[in-house]
Formats: sequence, C-alpha cells, structure tokens
Amino acid sequence: MVATEKRYRVIGTSPVRPDGTDKVTGRAEYGADIRPKGMLYGAVLRSPHAHARIESIDASRALAMDGVHAVITAADFPDLGNDPVPTIRGPVPASYAIEHIIASRTALFRGHPVAAVAATDPHLAEDAIAAIAVEYELLRPVLSIDAGLEPDAPILHDNSLAASIDGLFDPVDGRETNVARRVVLQIGDIEAGFAEADVIVEREFETASTHQGYIEPQNATAYWDHEGRLIVWTSTQGAFGVRQQLVELLKIPYSRIRVVPMEIGGGFGGKIPIYLEPLAAMLARHSGRPVQLTMSRAEVFEASGPTSATRSRVRIGAKRDGTITAAEGRFGFESGAFPGAPVAGGARCALSPYAIANQYVEGFEVVVNKPKTAAYRAPGAPQTEFAVESVLDELAEQLGIDPLEFRLKNAASEGSLRAEGVPHGVIGHREVLVAAQGSAHYRSELHGEYRGRGVASGFWFNAGGESSAYATMNPDGTVSLVTGSVDIGGQRAGLAMQFAETMGIEYHRIASTVGDTDSIGFTGNTGGSRTSFATGWAVYEAAMDLRTQIEERVARIWELDRESVSYGDDGLVTGPGDRSMSFAELAARLPATGGMLQGRADVRPMAVGPALAAHICDVEVDPDTGKVTILRYTAIQDVGKAIHPAYVEGQIQGGVAQGIGIALNEEYVFDEEGRMLNASFLDYRMPTTLDLPEIETILVEVPNPGHPYGVRGVGEV
Amino acid sequence: MVATEKRYRVIGTSPVRPDGTDKVTGRAEYGADIRPKGMLYGAVLRSPHAHARIESIDASRALAMDGVHAVITAADFPDLGNDPVPTIRGPVPASYAIEHIIASRTALFRGHPVAAVAATDPHLAEDAIAAIAVEYELLRPVLSIDAGLEPDAPILHDNSLAASIDGLFDPVDGRETNVARRVVLQIGDIEAGFAEADVIVEREFETASTHQGYIEPQNATAYWDHEGRLIVWTSTQGAFGVRQQLVELLKIPYSRIRVVPMEIGGGFGGKIPIYLEPLAAMLARHSGRPVQLTMSRAEVFEASGPTSATRSRVRIGAKRDGTITAAEGRFGFESGAFPGAPVAGGARCALSPYAIANQYVEGFEVVVNKPKTAAYRAPGAPQTEFAVESVLDELAEQLGIDPLEFRLKNAASEGSLRAEGVPHGVIGHREVLVAAQGSAHYRSELHGEYRGRGVASGFWFNAGGESSAYATMNPDGTVSLVTGSVDIGGQRAGLAMQFAETMGIEYHRIASTVGDTDSIGFTGNTGGSRTSFATGWAVYEAAMDLRTQIEERVARIWELDRESVSYGDDGLVTGPGDRSMSFAELAARLPATGGMLQGRADVRPMAVGPALAAHICDVEVDPDTGKVTILRYTAIQDVGKAIHPAYVEGQIQGGVAQGIGIALNEEYVFDEEGRMLNASFLDYRMPTTLDLPEIETILVEVPNPGHPYGVRGVGEV
Repeated sequence: MVATEKRYRVIGTSPVRPDGTDKVTGRAEYGADIRPKGMLYGAVLRSPHAHARIESIDASRALAMDGVHAVITAADFPDLGNDPVPTIRGPVPASYAIEHIIASRTALFRGHPVAAVAATDPHLAEDAIAAIAVEYELLRPVLSIDAGLEPDAPILHDNSLAASIDGLFDPVDGRETNVARRVVLQIGDIEAGFAEADVIVEREFETASTHQGYIEPQNATAYWDHEGRLIVWTSTQGAFGVRQQLVELLKIPYSRIRVVPMEIGGGFGGKIPIYLEPLAAMLARHSGRPVQLTMSRAEVFEASGPTSATRSRVRIGAKRDGTITAAEGRFGFESGAFPGAPVAGGARCALSPYAIANQYVEGFEVVVNKPKTAAYRAPGAPQTEFAVESVLDELAEQLGIDPLEFRLKNAASEGSLRAEGVPHGVIGHREVLVAAQGSAHYRSELHGEYRGRGVASGFWFNAGGESSAYATMNPDGTVSLVTGSVDIGGQRAGLAMQFAETMGIEYHRIASTVGDTDSIGFTGNTGGSRTSFATGWAVYEAAMDLRTQIEERVARIWELDRESVSYGDDGLVTGPGDRSMSFAELAARLPATGGMLQGRADVRPMAVGPALAAHICDVEVDPDTGKVTILRYTAIQDVGKAIHPAYVEGQIQGGVAQGIGIALNEEYVFDEEGRMLNASFLDYRMPTTLDLPEIETILVEVPNPGHPYGVRGVGEV
Repeated sequence: MVATEKRYRVIGTSPVRPDGTDKVTGRAEYGADIRPKGMLYGAVLRSPHAHARIESIDASRALAMDGVHAVITAADFPDLGNDPVPTIRGPVPASYAIEHIIASRTALFRGHPVAAVAATDPHLAEDAIAAIAVEYELLRPVLSIDAGLEPDAPILHDNSLAASIDGLFDPVDGRETNVARRVVLQIGDIEAGFAEADVIVEREFETASTHQGYIEPQNATAYWDHEGRLIVWTSTQGAFGVRQQLVELLKIPYSRIRVVPMEIGGGFGGKIPIYLEPLAAMLARHSGRPVQLTMSRAEVFEASGPTSATRSRVRIGAKRDGTITAAEGRFGFESGAFPGAPVAGGARCALSPYAIANQYVEGFEVVVNKPKTAAYRAPGAPQTEFAVESVLDELAEQLGIDPLEFRLKNAASEGSLRAEGVPHGVIGHREVLVAAQGSAHYRSELHGEYRGRGVASGFWFNAGGESSAYATMNPDGTVSLVTGSVDIGGQRAGLAMQFAETMGIEYHRIASTVGDTDSIGFTGNTGGSRTSFATGWAVYEAAMDLRTQIEERVARIWELDRESVSYGDDGLVTGPGDRSMSFAELAARLPATGGMLQGRADVRPMAVGPALAAHICDVEVDPDTGKVTILRYTAIQDVGKAIHPAYVEGQIQGGVAQGIGIALNEEYVFDEEGRMLNASFLDYRMPTTLDLPEIETILVEVPNPGHPYGVRGVGEV
C-alpha cells in the first residue's frame, strides 16, 4: 500500500465485520426467511412472449381454487397519469414505472408480469398462476439496437405519452422512434484535433447484456395493518429508494410505508429498482394477509435488470510523440423494454481518465423487447471504457509506445477538462499508472506462445447524495450507531470505524446497525460507491455533534466556561490545568449529570472524489478451443483512503472477477422470438474460484480533499 | 371534564391508536410469536418446595436425550460477588439478583428455577425437565410477616452478604433477621399531635398478595451471533431496563446486547423485573441456537412477582372541628424470597393526600418463602392508603362530618409538607374533592337495606426519569417518530399527539414507532406513570430541536438573517413582511436545499407532578352469601392535562377494575408448605366485565406547571 501521511488509530485496520459469521453460517435473516403470522405465498404470471398485446385475462378459475386469496392484474393499481417521476437515470412518465411492474395492455418482454396471486402455499400459488387464461395478440419483437432503429421497426411505446419529459423520445422527422434518450458531450474542436493527429485508429465494438449475478434472488414481503400502514420487508440496496418508489406507484404518503431492509445477498446495482414490492403490497391489500413473493433464478434472469448490450464506434488520433489530439465515441445502449439505460454515465466515463483537448462523445439508448436494464457496477462505464481502452492499445502499438507510458503521457489530472466541460479535481490517475509501472507484475516478463499481457485504465465518478446517522452513548462508554445504509460490503464495520476514529475510541465499542425507514433519517442507496463516502461523512458529523455536546456536559460538570473545555481526537476531554476526562469516564457520569447523549447528522456532501484504476492481466489462449486462461491479474487503484483495507481489496477483487466474467464467459443469449436461452447458472456461465487466479491488488491512496478522511469510494471503478 | 384555559389543536382529541386494530385482531407480533431460524424451545425446572437446600442436580439423563441441546444450572452463570446493583427499590447485592433467576444452593420459593433445558420441541423440553434428578433437603418455610419476625424463625438469607449495602438487613441485637429494610418518616411532634386530638381511631389491617394478571405471560427469546452479540426479544415494560439487568447479570458490555421490545400484553409493574431472559440467553449460548422460553399461567402466578401482602396499624386523631392533628402508620410488607418490597413508596404515599402537622410513618419488609414481589400499579400505595382511608372514614363518622367534607378540610395543597418533610407543589386534591362533591353520583341518594356508599382519596407521585426521542422529516410533510417507550396504554398515539401539537401539524402526519435498545437513546420503563410525562417531554424537545433547524433552513432559503425567521405554534414559519412557509411546504423543499432534517432529544425532567383522585362507590351486600355487588362507581382524578382523554379514561377504568378485584376477589392462597393453591385464572378470581358496572370518570385538569403540556401521569393513582 502506498502510504499517506496522516496517522489514524482505527482507520486502516481490518476488523472482522459484525455480520460476517452469521452470513456465512446461514443464520442471518434474509427477506425470504421471514414468516409474519398468517403469511400467504405469492406467484407471478409472466408473459411468455417478448412482445404481445394482452387481449383478455380470465382469472375466474384461479380465484375459485380453495386457498387462493387474491389475484391481481394491472387494473388493480392506481392510474398514475404521465407526470414525470424521478429515477436515477432522469425522469420517466409515471405510467411507465407501473407498466414495468405489471403490464396493462402490452407485454414488452418475456417475463413481463401480467398477473399475480396469493395462496396458502407456494405450490398452490403456482397452480393458480397456471389456471389464469390470458389471450395474447403476438407482435413482432424488437431484439437489437439495429432492429430498433429500422424505419419500419415496431414502436414499443406510445411516445406521445412522454412528450412532457425533456429529451425522452424526441421524434425524428415527426416520426415516433425507439430512441429514448440521446446525450452529446463535446469540448474543443474535434475535426481540428483529428487534423493534428499522425495516427488515427477507429474501431467498432459490441457488448452483450450481462447480469449482476447476485446470489440472493429478489424477494418482498408486504403487510398492511388495519390502520392502512404498509410494511415491506425486502432485499434492497436502499430502503428509502424502495419507499420512494412505493410512494409514487401506490400513491400513499411516506409516513404510511415502512420499508425494512433485510440482509442482502448482493446487489451490484440490480437491487436499486423494485419489481416484486408493489405486487406483494397489492396482493396483501386484497387478501388482508401478509404476502411473500420470491423470484426463481430464471425469473431473476428474465425479469430483473441486466446491463445494456451496446454497439459503439470509437476513433482516437495521436501525434507521433504519443499526445492524443482528438477522441470521438458513439455509444448505443439497449434500454430493454423501458427507457433507462446508463447512457449519460457511460458517455461521461468513456474518456475521463485522459486529458484530451478535443472530444466528442455521443450516447443514445434504444428500447427493445428485452428485460428493462438496470445498474450494474459503474453502470455504462465498462462498455464505453472497454471500447476506448481497446483503441488506445492499438494506437500505442502503432506508435511503438509502452501502453502504460502512453496512458501516463495522456493521463488526466487536477484541472483537466472532462468531455462535459467540467475540470477534474484532485485525482490519482498518474499515481496509479506509476504504481502499475513499478509493480512486480508489470516488471515481470511473460514468455510463451499464445500468451499476452493487457492493460487498461478505468474511471468512475463515485457518488454523493444524502445520508443520515444517529448515535447514542451507553454508560459503559460503548455506542449504538444507526445508519440507513444497507450493508453489502462491510458497511457496518467501515462506518463504525469512521465513527470510532472521530470519537477517538476503540472500534469494538461501537454496535453498528442498519435502520429501517421509520427508525433513521433519509439515506440514499448503497450504490454508486457512495456509502463509505457519504454515510461515512454523516457518521463523522454525528460524532462531531456528540463531541460538542460532550464538551458542554463536561464544562457543566467541571463548572467551567464552555469555551475552556475541548474534545481531542484521542477521545480525551481536556480543560484548564491538567484536567481531563476520557470518553468512557464521561459516559459513566452521564446518567447522573443530566442523562445520556445522542449525536445525529444528515449530510449531502458534494465534494465527491472520482476514482481511477489501472489493471494488468496476463492470459494464455488455447489455439484449438479458444479457451482463455487468466495467468496473472493485478489491479492498481486510487482508493482515496482505505478505511478497511481488507474489504477494499475484496471490493476490487470482486470487481475483477465480474469483469473477467463479462469479458470471457457471460452473455444473455436470445432466440429470434426474444426468449432467453440460458436463464440458469448452469448455462449462464459466471467465473468460479476455479477459473480465477489470486487477484493481486495495489492500493494507492490519494486522499479526496473533500472528505474528512479522504474517502473516494472503491466498489465500482 | 373540567376545562383548562390553554387551547390546543391536537391535545385533548382522541384518535385511534395505530397499534389498536392489529392487537385486537391477533395480528400484532408478541414475544411468543417470533421464530428465529433454528430456534429451540426451553423449559425451566422449578423447585416444588418453598424452602429447601439443593443437595445435588443430576442432568445426565436429560442431556442424553435426542434433541436436547443444552441443560443449564446456576453453576453456568458468572460469579457476581456482592457489590451492590441498583434496582428500582434501592441496591441489592449482585448475587441476590442472579440467585433469584436461578437458585444455586437454596430454593427460596415454590417455583424458584433450579435448572433449564433447550430442546427441539416444547414437549421434549418438558420431558427433559422431568428427567433431571434433584435432591433437596427440606427446610422450614417462612410464610408470613409474623412468622418471619419470630425469634427462632429460619433466616432466609446470609445477611452478612449484604453488609455493604446500607439499610439492608441491619442486625437486631447482633442477631440476623428476615427484616430486609426499614423506613421511618416523620414531621412535627406525633405525641403532641395526639394530645391535641378530641377523637382518635386506631385499627389494624391485613392485605393479601395479588397478581397484576396481565393477559400475556412472560416470554424471552435469545440468540448470540457469532461475534458474541446477544439479541433478546421479550415482553417488557422497558427494553433498556432489561438490557441493564442483563449487563449486570451476564457481565457483558451494553453494546453487546440488543433488546427488542415486542408488543406487550399488559405489565402493570410486573414486567419491569426479568425472569426468563438470562436463562434464555445462557441456553442460547450453550446450544449455539436461538432459544425461546415462555411461562405457563401457573408459572406466572408462582414464579413472577405479585404484590406484597401487608400488615399495618394506623392511628389518626382529629379535633371536633374535623382538623386532623396527628397520624401514625406502621406498615409491614412481605418481600417474597428476596428484598425489594415497595416499602418506601407505600410509606410515602400513605398520608400524602392530607396536610397533617404531625406525622409518623414506619415501613419495613420481611423476606418470606414466597415469590419475590414486584411492582403493581402504584406499588405499595393501595395497601397503605386503604388502611389510612378506612380509619379516616371511621373518624368522619365519629365526628359526624361528611367523609368528603372531612377530606376536603384536611386536603393537602401547594406547600403542605409530606411525611418525608418535602412540601407539595401544585396539586389538585381540593379540586378533585370539590368535583366529587358536585358529581351526579355523590348528589344522588342511595336507598335500600344492605347498601352503602364509600369514598376514598388516593395519591401517587408519578415518576420522571430519562427518555429519548428521535424524529425524521419526510418530503411530503410527514414525520417518523421513534421513542423507546414500550406501548402499553396508547403511548404511540399520545406521544405522536404531543409531537404534532409542538410542530403545529396534524396528528395523522406522524408515524410513531417504538425502537429497540440499539435504535433509540436511553429511555426508562413504561411504568410509574412516567411515559406521557417524560417521553412526552422528550418528544416536545425533539420537535423544538426540529423547529430550530427549520428556522435555520428557511432563513437560508429566503437568504435572511437567522433571527428574522420564526416557527409558530401553528406550524407556519414566518419572516419579514408577509413571508410564510408551512411545515409541509418546507418539507418538500428539504431534499433540494441541503437534505432532510432530524430532531432528537434526551431529557431527564425533574418537575414531576403528583396526582390525586377521589373515588365514590355504592355497593350492596348479600347478607346470606356475603357477595358484594358494585352498584355504581365514579372515579374523579386530577390528570394534569389529558393528552388523549379516551385513553386517560381507559387507564382510570382499568385501575378501578383492578382495585375492585383486590378489594373483593383476588388473593394468593397458600397451604402450610408454601404451595399456592389457586394458581390458575379459574381459581384466582379476577373481575370480569360481568362483575363490573360502567365505571364513570370525571377528569379534573390542574396542569403540572413543570411540563410543557401540564402532563402529570394518570395510570397509577
């Protein structure tokens, strides 16, 4: 690890996360584990067709079955109209949001929900689903970007619905299209830039849809109490995001919904949108009982959100000395059945690792009859950066420059403009490239036929947004810390560490728990690599709030002026002379001197610190079978400040494993009617530990000046 | 209702409690409803003898049974030594606290736990209990105060253990005794007072042990995660109290224990101490699985805490004009098997309704071989006040003064000294008596043979202590409010009402929930009639904390000085000119102006407002059978301020029903070996609705000047 100067007591150590053992021994409570009294089991009837008009639904046979308590269709949901509702990819019409949950007129992808039932046991629920008769009129499916752009392509959405939403479905020549959104970013003069270039490389690329592959399928359990309050237990990356979506889709006030985030078996972006929650809620309302819905693995593949397939064309020009003079990228993303592909994120990341005077980046998304895509770890970036980095490698080769040296020569640094015209802050691309050049891996030689070494840089903005924290002191000097950030990658530990550091007390004194939407203030999703940064900041502020109150209390106990007492980073309160009181000593005196203390904070930090990485990979190709073996892999990353180095390494190693899967094995395969042909883990081949070498990591620490502890976020780049 | 001047918008209305319907329809989750994964069922082996030395315990047969996962005895608990641990009745040696949970050497009451098991099903657990062989040496039991005081009485406790604890088991003439604690209060000159009296009445009284009779038996479910954190779900009046007791008994830090208060089916003081929690925790530790323990009704009667049986002697003297000149009371309480009878409370309440210049009150407790007593609604007061009020009635009769007029003449008011030498604050005894005199009931005539009318006054201090509150705003102007007060009598509603009043918003905007010990700051028990008062105050302060932050935020939005913006009681923020913004408007603007806001408070209010009541009861006695029929009952009470009048009436009516049960039907009956002969609801006869008339209430409101809304507390007096 490349060390930074500031000395910490807790930050930089690697204690075991409090939820760890329970999770690996199967004792942690996940969404599918809970059994509220009188709970019914639900099942979802899904369209077998990728594109079909729903002519009629006859649920009478299902409803007549003994033990079937409710059958719902789209008609049971409120009419939302087309006012825009916010999503993480910009506004969409409210009607789209509910139409995605359950189809009213047209099934837009295979797996699109059409009806749902609740029954006394899961087998009966399946039988009831089978007893619902749906008549479809088959429509021609749109199954690729190119097919969606054809002049006579079937149009998936009545685009006029979205007329009120800026930039969504702008008609071309007055004609409706499947192009849902277009983003153009540019700086400098792209043609002048190419004119300066000595060498220009232009290539086209395609990437397939891949799935996040989280272990735990989606689930949701819902229950309305008799006062009309809805409680939802679910597997999500953000309980407040689920609540927000339910507020909008069910049209009930925030205070009438309580969302309890259960433990989560992975998300990677795929558990930010909701699927089952509104169905479970409506089934619960109709049956008057708690209802649980869980997805099978096939449902996860076919009806949750994979990442976009893309088509792209990248052209980059450079001078002989290696200076890049111009770069142009055009990136087409499949939306799936509804708008919302990560166009802006992909477009903005594509060239961000580099300082290039003349840039033009265009991104657009096309709706197709496939599952609506969702976020997947740095959404949009792997697809666009893969294309850019491939072209850069070819350029470096043509120029005869070492590929890391070529990147270093053009590396962005503080003040470099990104494609959207915004200058970079303090970033660590140069530091990362220098560390990569100096790494044992890069300095090693690679011999042998059919073997090769690749390098690539990566960029992700990281995210800020709002987070809350609440901390209460106990008389023995321990602290109960509540945050609203679902714990996926060790947040309970990482947040407790930042709190302990700020208070100047030991990590083990903190009991770190995750609250539900009624028990903690608003907190955004665990995603976008924002949690250690933003919730970490909230935890810091809650500790500072406590420090202030402790100073006031100690001043009162010592009968001194407030100003003459101060709380030190070592957890010691000091006053005039040699007066001092430790955190634990003060805690013990709280009950008798006015009661316990609570710290609280709600922050919305803006000073997000983007992260950069460089990866080195050695592979061997079997010329007969095409099988690729990863021989060695090293990931070098600017982590800002590693709060918990072991979990930071885990994040990086997990990202590499997923990247290798995307590069080599994973792919959604569809037939010509839009049926996914490999909707199981047997056929959708993710890498296993047997496929991967030990993934080496080098943590570079260029602290984010915008965070008390320099945190940037590490999960996505 | 006697109206007060101040006008409120929310306080004084009677909305339906949010938990109400779920509770009456059986859908609320009580402690015995939960089923953590892999849960075992526990059972407790209890001493069949009231007093016996434990010679040996052989659990080998039980341990060998298939499906039995753990057997524990006292030997499995940490050795606590005899440092004092605090209880609500003053300190006791730590070893007593654990000895009460499970006997190590001597079983001190029938039902005293001796061992406990955990097994895969409850029947197996019972079988395993039956397979444990215990050899006892029988000891002579002490079964009454008189027997306990005899010079040759068996001594229950090695009193030297408690030598360090002031006032506990002071030896008499160097001899060990069963007298555990003695309290003496006096003001004036008692003999001079009696010398002034024209009439003196002196009588002796006895009361029997009675049980709180809560519907839901005790239960506890415990689980240790692999990091050694204990989670306990239980039925309790105070999760923090349970945590405190577990910290002391199990010797683990606060931050390693999370206590989740489930819904509670009544407590009345009996669910402040713990019984099953340490056993469940230890069984869970030994088995490595979650373990649930529940009491049967017989176990509740025999092994939880009834109220003390008492013996008392009261002497009161008055002048011809009705002025009481002296009053003396000696009150003996049965402790049960361990010290902790409500001696001080009973002694302090006895004469508190009256202004009497010369008072002497003595109270003492005697340990006997019966279940350790626990608090029961105004603990100690009904026993002592029953005696005093009976003597007052006889005095009034002898003096020929109307019994209410006699009480009014001697009623305490602001400044009157209580027996402990402390002057009363603002109290409403006079107002209550005047309202009683003017009541339709008292002005009605009662005719007929074997019929009579009784009156009595009652006093309770009410309690303060520490409470916390935490409130978060939602963008639609609703609020999530978390407190730590277990909801027995409608606290969710009553606290939300005080919050809504303070914010100037509607009640229905508040989602009011009860937190566990990890999710909310320290909050004392729901008991002592402290919750509406102290947690209400915390809720008030949390709202005021929000109001301050809202003023700051609005000032920022308006770009004005902080000082020129103010939050009004009508929920409107106003500034210079006609600028104004409602709570809901501001809530909607929070996300875009710096994020949501949270209010928090931890209070320990001291300005407790005692409460006084006068009851009027008409009865008819069947001369052949002795059966007493209640013809009419009216309770007049100074409630300070009725936050939720319907629930205040409910508290008073419930108290009357219990008082009638104590007076007429209820009683622990023991045989000469200390076996309870009526340990079931069939034989322990509580009044049912068929036994009771409609209980009329008159709410008198003399606001407590020490509370923002004048709250005193209503549950106990």
